[in-house]
Amino acid sequence: MSRSSDPVSSNPVTSEHGRSAAADVSPWGDMRQVLHARVLAALPQQHKHPEINDFYAHIRNYPERGGKGLRGQLVLLSAALHGGQWQGAVEVAAALELFQNWVLVHDDIEDDSEERRGQPALHVQIGMPPALNVGDALHVYMWQLLHAQHHLPRFQEILQTFGWMIQRTAEGQHLDLSWVSQGRFDVSEGEYFEMVTRKTAYYTVVAPLQLGALCAGVTPDERMIEAGKALGVAFQIRDDVLNLMPDISYGKEFAGDLYEAKRTLILAHTFAGCTSEEHETLCRRLAKARSAKTDEDIAAILGLIDKYGSLEHAQQVAERYAATGLQQLHDITHHLPNQAAAAVLFNLVESLASRRT
Amino acid sequence: MSRSSDPVSSNPVTSEHGRSAAADVSPWGDMRQVLHARVLAALPQQHKHPEINDFYAHIRNYPERGGKGLRGQLVLLSAALHGGQWQGAVEVAAALELFQNWVLVHDDIEDDSEERRGQPALHVQIGMPPALNVGDALHVYMWQLLHAQHHLPRFQEILQTFGWMIQRTAEGQHLDLSWVSQGRFDVSEGEYFEMVTRKTAYYTVVAPLQLGALCAGVTPDERMIEAGKALGVAFQIRDDVLNLMPDISYGKEFAGDLYEAKRTLILAHTFAGCTSEEHETLCRRLAKARSAKTDEDIAAILGLIDKYGSLEHAQQVAERYAATGLQQLHDITHHLPNQAAAAVLFNLVESLASRRT
Repeated sequence: MSRSSDPVSSNPVTSEHGRSAAADVSPWGDMRQVLHARVLAALPQQHKHPEINDFYAHIRNYPERGGKGLRGQLVLLSAALHGGQWQGAVEVAAALELFQNWVLVHDDIEDDSEERRGQPALHVQIGMPPALNVGDALHVYMWQLLHAQHHLPRFQEILQTFGWMIQRTAEGQHLDLSWVSQGRFDVSEGEYFEMVTRKTAYYTVVAPLQLGALCAGVTPDERMIEAGKALGVAFQIRDDVLNLMPDISYGKEFAGDLYEAKRTLILAHTFAGCTSEEHETLCRRLAKARSAKTDEDIAAILGLIDKYGSLEHAQQVAERYAATGLQQLHDITHHLPNQAAAAVLFNLVESLASRRT
Repeated sequence: MSRSSDPVSSNPVTSEHGRSAAADVSPWGDMRQVLHARVLAALPQQHKHPEINDFYAHIRNYPERGGKGLRGQLVLLSAALHGGQWQGAVEVAAALELFQNWVLVHDDIEDDSEERRGQPALHVQIGMPPALNVGDALHVYMWQLLHAQHHLPRFQEILQTFGWMIQRTAEGQHLDLSWVSQGRFDVSEGEYFEMVTRKTAYYTVVAPLQLGALCAGVTPDERMIEAGKALGVAFQIRDDVLNLMPDISYGKEFAGDLYEAKRTLILAHTFAGCTSEEHETLCRRLAKARSAKTDEDIAAILGLIDKYGSLEHAQQVAERYAATGLQQLHDITHHLPNQAAAAVLFNLVESLASRRT
């Protein structure tokens, strides 16, 4: 189902929480803009053949919509933290942003999502078959950008990390899609963690931290995997919790996850606790097509989530994962050379894993 | 629309034309089997998680169906022709076969094809969203196999050739899909050549010839691009001609291209010659959904193709392209070291570009 939201925001990420004003005047103040420009520079601009020119515009479509570039910035900050220059990691960070973009094009088809970053999804704009093909082309531009980085001393490991990351993400996506195919809503918490670790945590935190180290010429600490998994899982659970908090505006439709019957820790918890009659009710209401779901359906599901305290449970789990991950990350990084970068990186990671908006 | 047929055959390609019996006892007699085994060895075998295990089986699905492996064999023969050992090019050839496989998974979704190599298409078997995701994973296994070839002296150029080839193929596919989206059937011969050169010729002939040279450590002759384009175009036109020859069994449904309203040189020629009334008839009948097309529709279209001699025209064009391409290829290769390999390669290329079954 749909990936985590990545709402457009005009604020640099370093100032989002009002606690890192120093970062705005830091050497990485323009990091996000540089990253975004590099993403677009990796893509084809124009072609004399009008239809191929259109094709190139479709390839730039999602990247031009923007986004926070959180994962790319994590790469840059991790490179700095490990003693490198963030500027030397911009291409690899941009490739990670391209990954996010082609995956979103294909995800939106797989989930039949209507919107992406406030505009119609690409397959809604140009039709499914051409959009699928655009995603494939964007995928190749990602590899081409990476292949041009062969001067980096850890080039082979960077390629391996990308390959490994994409395979894990595809496996997580398969778990999610296979539940959808089977019409299964009552996934266990264990199944949820397995899915979300693969689908979200690797590419959101684990791989960015590792790629930054590799760009700085450093072998990533093995413990980064566990730390990144905890933080990535916390990020996704928080995203799901925010979706069910009506008073919070964060760029996605309130309870959109229930309309889409997205498998979340929240629902896994409700399913685990509810009676067999409630179980049947939940499945029946969730199974309705998005357009067939009524306010009453959503209210009934929300009522059961509330009855079992599943939102609070998920929030607590997210906070526990975030705290564990941050502590692990601190243990790994507190001796590293660039503690100014560490401060900004921790701020970014915290904003991911514990964000309230 | 759908790619060229690649029917399953149990005969090694070198014996298909009964004129290269020597090749069967040659050092490359088991080339095809070695190639197929290498393709499968590059893919994941099993996983303890049952659903990920299923995912791995889906990834192996199309590759396990077999196929002639013509493009991979072209790489191997080109490597030998350029003075290398074909065994040293097996991984790169296998990667090209993986390319063909992931493209077919996605193509079958884009065209909503029902069958592939005599079995239901993957998205028919497991549903569209999981099949799309399987194609993405297969795409990454292709790159991972290539990335492991970093010991090859022309490693960077091999990566570049793959990237360039896939981009051209995607551009050709976009042209074709955009005509489908627009409901345009009356493409000109010029438009057809532009599309088919990108969509078929690069990955069928141009890139295989170049990749073989690179695997042998040799810079590909620049004239190989023109030769390969001519041969690849001839291959596709022949494929389209065979589809409309009722007395020939070559693994695809007779006139399936008309049911699918595939844009071919044959139709381009008929459109160019017919009256405005016939033009309207052609468009109306082609525009019907596959299942709505009657025998009368097909007979009417075939009647116009026959009236304007478009099948014969296409066959002549294919033969002219094949002859030109073979002559160019001869000019480029006649001085190369391994003329025994050249003989087998020419036999294979001729079978592609001029095949009658």
